[in-house]
Amino acid sequence: MTNGALMMKRREFVQKSVAAGGGALLGGLAGPANAEKPRSSTIRRSVTGAQKNVLLIISDDHGYDQLGCYGNSVIKTPNLDAMASRGVRFTNAFAIAPSCSASRGSLLTGLYPHQNGQCGHEHNWHHFSLLDWVETIPSLLKKNGYRTGLIGKLHAGSKSNLTFDYRVEGKEIMGNRDAMKIAQCAGEFFGQETDKPFFLLIGYSDPHRDDQGPSVMRNVENFSGFANDKTYPGIIPTKYRPEDVRVPDYLPDIPEVRAELADQYESVTRLDTSVGRVLENLKKSGRGGDTLVIYISDNGIPFPGAKTTLYDSGTKIPMIILSPEITTGGVVNQALVSLVDLMPTILDWASIKPPKYKLPGRSLKNILNASDDPTRQEVYCSHTFHEITMFYPMRALRTRKHKYILNLHPELEFPFATDLFVSKTWQGIVSRRLEMMGKRSTQSYLYRPKEELYDMESDPAESVNLAGNPQYDGVLKELTAKLAAMRAATEDYWLINDNYTINRETFPRK
Amino acid sequence: MTNGALMMKRREFVQKSVAAGGGALLGGLAGPANAEKPRSSTIRRSVTGAQKNVLLIISDDHGYDQLGCYGNSVIKTPNLDAMASRGVRFTNAFAIAPSCSASRGSLLTGLYPHQNGQCGHEHNWHHFSLLDWVETIPSLLKKNGYRTGLIGKLHAGSKSNLTFDYRVEGKEIMGNRDAMKIAQCAGEFFGQETDKPFFLLIGYSDPHRDDQGPSVMRNVENFSGFANDKTYPGIIPTKYRPEDVRVPDYLPDIPEVRAELADQYESVTRLDTSVGRVLENLKKSGRGGDTLVIYISDNGIPFPGAKTTLYDSGTKIPMIILSPEITTGGVVNQALVSLVDLMPTILDWASIKPPKYKLPGRSLKNILNASDDPTRQEVYCSHTFHEITMFYPMRALRTRKHKYILNLHPELEFPFATDLFVSKTWQGIVSRRLEMMGKRSTQSYLYRPKEELYDMESDPAESVNLAGNPQYDGVLKELTAKLAAMRAATEDYWLINDNYTINRETFPRK
Repeated sequence: MTNGALMMKRREFVQKSVAAGGGALLGGLAGPANAEKPRSSTIRRSVTGAQKNVLLIISDDHGYDQLGCYGNSVIKTPNLDAMASRGVRFTNAFAIAPSCSASRGSLLTGLYPHQNGQCGHEHNWHHFSLLDWVETIPSLLKKNGYRTGLIGKLHAGSKSNLTFDYRVEGKEIMGNRDAMKIAQCAGEFFGQETDKPFFLLIGYSDPHRDDQGPSVMRNVENFSGFANDKTYPGIIPTKYRPEDVRVPDYLPDIPEVRAELADQYESVTRLDTSVGRVLENLKKSGRGGDTLVIYISDNGIPFPGAKTTLYDSGTKIPMIILSPEITTGGVVNQALVSLVDLMPTILDWASIKPPKYKLPGRSLKNILNASDDPTRQEVYCSHTFHEITMFYPMRALRTRKHKYILNLHPELEFPFATDLFVSKTWQGIVSRRLEMMGKRSTQSYLYRPKEELYDMESDPAESVNLAGNPQYDGVLKELTAKLAAMRAATEDYWLINDNYTINRETFPRK
Repeated sequence: MTNGALMMKRREFVQKSVAAGGGALLGGLAGPANAEKPRSSTIRRSVTGAQKNVLLIISDDHGYDQLGCYGNSVIKTPNLDAMASRGVRFTNAFAIAPSCSASRGSLLTGLYPHQNGQCGHEHNWHHFSLLDWVETIPSLLKKNGYRTGLIGKLHAGSKSNLTFDYRVEGKEIMGNRDAMKIAQCAGEFFGQETDKPFFLLIGYSDPHRDDQGPSVMRNVENFSGFANDKTYPGIIPTKYRPEDVRVPDYLPDIPEVRAELADQYESVTRLDTSVGRVLENLKKSGRGGDTLVIYISDNGIPFPGAKTTLYDSGTKIPMIILSPEITTGGVVNQALVSLVDLMPTILDWASIKPPKYKLPGRSLKNILNASDDPTRQEVYCSHTFHEITMFYPMRALRTRKHKYILNLHPELEFPFATDLFVSKTWQGIVSRRLEMMGKRSTQSYLYRPKEELYDMESDPAESVNLAGNPQYDGVLKELTAKLAAMRAATEDYWLINDNYTINRETFPRK
């Protein structure tokens, strides 16, 4: 289960770190300002390793490849790039679900949506929430003496296990896009009650499409992009030219797509600026050396073909981690990891016992300095709802070589998220009657077979379905069995439909 | 809006009632024991009309025709029959949804499930609940000085608006089937804090199928019917012979069906015995004369073809009301009424202001002595989920002459509730490969068109779909428009799928 060469027992590590002194412990936050003392003398600097703070930063619909450090040479993300250069960057990190609430629910609980109940959106009439018995990262940390904070977007619900000691809501921070105010609040939080370890969750709305509210009747004309029309105090907008953006291979290269991507890039850079300021404020608070910092997105970009799908475009996410345990920085780790690994990681880091029920993920703590982990060969995904009206249960298995997707109700059209439907991108595809959305066909986007199998090496765009191809029968059989085993082990309640299926030979649809 | 001939202004009524004295006020509880004084001298008898108590009794899957007073000459329901003879019996009363939680959510809030959020089961992983802003009958009554109680099954969820001062849970009363204990608890509740008016909800589990727990893998072999295998203190079981039961016209006349109906009848009679004892205890408490008593079921019988469908077999329910306002008793009212009318009725009876948002139902208070109400010509139904895995949104309009059903996702098979699938009835239909389930075909049960239209006068079994028949184009157009208007007025969020539908001419399924 562990990679011997990479392992360092926790106790040994703490001893070494303490011996190395506070400076070394600041790890990921190294740099000129590193030696700065906290500005307020009332802040107790705890660089002894005694505190195990956690800062979890979640962006909204930030694509895997929309960062400089992930190979995008156009987009400007200097702060995230710097973070990666000081920490570890995972190149095969996956969301469990390609949808905001379900993804966040799974990362906050370490359970699949079909286990924890958060299998669709939390807000408005969608109203999905975690089952009452489900513990969360903040609930467990709070029970163990942590001060907990939330700045911005949560988007998961719980009767009693998602309360926070400090909370700043969306209205106060311009729908969670006021980059400087968010960083300022984080600084305020870092400076409070420093005798307790903290858990802070910052949930940005950038780079999500602008939310026009709960109307059933949003329309294309008044949908306003990525909230770049507003002025954000302290932010000088970084504009991008449509001709410069990178059009992913699952989107058609049309002006509407380029224009929307350029808009989204601006939103990403605004977010990046804020993350940089948050990390600066953490450093200034003197607590950076005791803090595990995790940067992730909830799912892929808000474009047809990405978000809400179980293609890599929907599930593959940036994941950058800073930890005092990272010895040199700039680590690039290609192990297959997923958001259910975060809760075990954080509990491991904080030396807090996991809940009594089994968590499917595994702590990443021992592979933060590694370039791979041969024991991590697969990731499972589980999606059921985005909006409550968008019932489309899918389960998937991603290995290093293949992707297998099981569509439980292929008789349904693939449903559209409101913001994707009204996007200029989709409306452009419709008005131009495009048969191809990049390398994938519009047909295959809208209508899906029961099973999909892709060779991720030769066909990273997931455009050639190999299910049904006799040459791949063996692979299909193996992956089908693995996915079935995972579903049984995690008591996926959608199995009920397999068990209680009518005999269609006796009663065929006429 | 009101039926002039039937109207009696509230104030006038109270004056008349008070003038008539306590005896007259006992109304529905008249009989030899009527003059009895409460046994405990500590109970303050309030027969002045000053208190406006409410006793709401909900049975589980009790079919419209499974009562003597509703014309079933086999089943024994002497207590409910007696209640009807002293009160009013509605012959066209409908549930909003043919499913436990959604039906109860709508009756407790006066809103359709697509408005209040309780659009599927509340328990276990299904986990649907009322939206946070939604008021309920008990929440409003409690805010207005009522003592509130719940004995047995609630099956709706709310963050804060479904709390009760007195509560007896399922475990204490044999899964809400311990008939005598339930009545005893009711008596206890009636005798407490008599200086406050009360609202008591009694939710029976009879005559639901026996619940085998949350396993994904229930099976036919160990499914044990209607919990008649247990011994209930104080209850002498009433057994029925399969050859005697009435097989409804939507079920095949096969031994499995008869055996299960005989079992269910026994469960109904157990329930009836308990209702009789509850009413006796109410009378003994001296509060009967101040109490509005409502008996309803949540939906139709737990057999394929009934429960979970929007045919009358799924939605038509018994509704019997006792009220001091009923002057002679034995009223039979054929107006079309539904469970969203209950909240307005209870608020009207209690002189409590409704919530600020619009309630779609109308108080029945003014028609309790009437045989009809010409202003009540239609009822709307809204169903989306039963179990969370059973996504099958339907909306319907029932007029006196027609039924119109809109199936929003006809491409799906009609999904099976767990207990219906494993029932001996369905397994009998499968093993016998029956093409007909009574007057309806198995095919039409499993696979449904987008629109269904029935002539309820010539075809009460709803077996001949008239949608598409040119002779009925006018009717179809009229009903379609009415249903669309209701959906728009109640902001049915499933309208989103109408608005954001892809252009299938541009992108047909190949």
